[in-house]
Amino acid sequence: MNNYQIFSLGEFLLQSGCTLRDSMIAYQTFGELSPDRNNVILYPTRFYGTHNDNSFLVGPGKALDPEKYFIVIPNLTGNGFSSSPSNSQEPIDRANFPNVSILDNVLMQRRLLREVFGVERLRLVVGWSMGAQQAYHWGALFPEEVERIAAIAGSAKTSPHNQVFLEGMKAALTADSAWKNGLYIEPPVVGLRAMGRCWAGWALSQAFYRQHLFRELGFASLEEFLTDFWEKLFLKRDANNMLAQIWTWQHSDISDNSLYNGDFVRALQAIKARTIVMPGETDLYFPPEDSIYEVNHLPNAELKTIPSVWGHYAGGSANTKDVDFVDNNLKRLLSLD
Amino acid sequence: MNNYQIFSLGEFLLQSGCTLRDSMIAYQTFGELSPDRNNVILYPTRFYGTHNDNSFLVGPGKALDPEKYFIVIPNLTGNGFSSSPSNSQEPIDRANFPNVSILDNVLMQRRLLREVFGVERLRLVVGWSMGAQQAYHWGALFPEEVERIAAIAGSAKTSPHNQVFLEGMKAALTADSAWKNGLYIEPPVVGLRAMGRCWAGWALSQAFYRQHLFRELGFASLEEFLTDFWEKLFLKRDANNMLAQIWTWQHSDISDNSLYNGDFVRALQAIKARTIVMPGETDLYFPPEDSIYEVNHLPNAELKTIPSVWGHYAGGSANTKDVDFVDNNLKRLLSLD
Repeated sequence: MNNYQIFSLGEFLLQSGCTLRDSMIAYQTFGELSPDRNNVILYPTRFYGTHNDNSFLVGPGKALDPEKYFIVIPNLTGNGFSSSPSNSQEPIDRANFPNVSILDNVLMQRRLLREVFGVERLRLVVGWSMGAQQAYHWGALFPEEVERIAAIAGSAKTSPHNQVFLEGMKAALTADSAWKNGLYIEPPVVGLRAMGRCWAGWALSQAFYRQHLFRELGFASLEEFLTDFWEKLFLKRDANNMLAQIWTWQHSDISDNSLYNGDFVRALQAIKARTIVMPGETDLYFPPEDSIYEVNHLPNAELKTIPSVWGHYAGGSANTKDVDFVDNNLKRLLSLD
Repeated sequence: MNNYQIFSLGEFLLQSGCTLRDSMIAYQTFGELSPDRNNVILYPTRFYGTHNDNSFLVGPGKALDPEKYFIVIPNLTGNGFSSSPSNSQEPIDRANFPNVSILDNVLMQRRLLREVFGVERLRLVVGWSMGAQQAYHWGALFPEEVERIAAIAGSAKTSPHNQVFLEGMKAALTADSAWKNGLYIEPPVVGLRAMGRCWAGWALSQAFYRQHLFRELGFASLEEFLTDFWEKLFLKRDANNMLAQIWTWQHSDISDNSLYNGDFVRALQAIKARTIVMPGETDLYFPPEDSIYEVNHLPNAELKTIPSVWGHYAGGSANTKDVDFVDNNLKRLLSLD
């Protein structure tokens, strides 16, 4: 039995003007919705993450405690569970999949919450990385519906350097002629491996490598870490799915919509939610400087930088100390009125 | 007429045990050698740089003043001027070119200095990036022959993260099947472009991009910078040459030789030269932390971090303020007894 459910939205009109046929959001829930429907936490997924990758923050005694809260984990489109190049039919299969924005995802998630659960207000939206992008978008698009935001190692608008990093990743993947402009039958394994090796330098910090912390993850050498972790991780992924999500990532901007017309500061200022922003101290692609800028313009936010050498992974499940830091801040955030 | 000369060394026995046939160092000189041969500055080149790329630090009134000093710029092997895959003949042409270490380069440069100029002692060895690697090697291998070192945005031993960064660059380049394991006739243009796009994120800092400083370099947009600067830069380069130099870079370690047998601290401690170490404050692949470690073990060194958002490029020719910072420190270093 699957540990997730499907919410089907049929034809969904995207921000781009295109239509996403047979659109669906795969989601998992934990806990019970309270009678007054005021105990809901939305916890969207990261780049290529699924609901299964999110569950480390959920459990009895943790901030995201299913004994107290109704926790909904919607999968981001393009991750292979929600609508994605890999699970869509012609004419929107594979490289023909339309561009889906974070705003589109938020609107689909909102319909899920309203139509399936009758939920119109969120106690908290929390996410890591692309999950944080979704949390920020929720706050800016529906300020009255979001009480709290926890944005972990993510941004409200993809920075220029982050764009460049992603351009490199796309170029490495698509340098493999087996990619065939996305119309591959056999996966472009050389490109997937290359992308994994390229990503390795960005996801973890210089200090992580200096201290050989890949050993804590069970890898004896740097080469073993690159081959057995990074290459294998990317070999499991579908190239078109990743390219779809990278499009979403590159176009993430809470002000890129008719509410704010590109006025990023105004979009930040519109977020009413009590917010904790948790960048990783050594994150190379969502560096703390961008978070500081955002906190300085958010009306009700505090910065809690994760003191960690785990780079972008500081906000993920990789090490207990950082998870505790995040969990403790989520507890505090949830306890605040 | 060429602005450089060739020093031919014939068969050169490499650190690896292999032989480099018809070996040569292309070099350029500025100024006049003094009668007592004590005014010599050695200024080796960076990754894929040539003597032409070094000349911005040389000139009347600058620290490297040809009216005072005899300045020798040896090209690093693999750059297309000194012995390289692209200019060697069978059986060491192209992908068959042997692995050449920084130590090998230092030994070749030392023969050049002794056999052509009768020079046995250097006032200064100065270099940026891979040039700094050569400067450190000179100091560790021949402590009695080097009076001063200026190491700009480089390291004495390639760090684990730096290895990962380079693994990514190789993977992006060689993902192009046109590379043909180095036996291409037509250049692997897709891989070269991909490598350029990947390198773009590493060479300059997050802050550089945040502040849109590519505009100062004459590029109107991020995409124009990626395409017209980075892709074009790499399209001019020979893939095998780059791979040869990346091998050299990845194996750069002043202690990887029979003098120090891998004892990196002992190799640092052996450097007698008065040394100024100038990392770029925001350098992503030679971060200041590695320089601090080195300075802490060098007997006679000071740290002068370049206060710049230009990332690795802080030590290069890209902006006047950083060049002035470097030049002023070189002047001070040369004035010290």
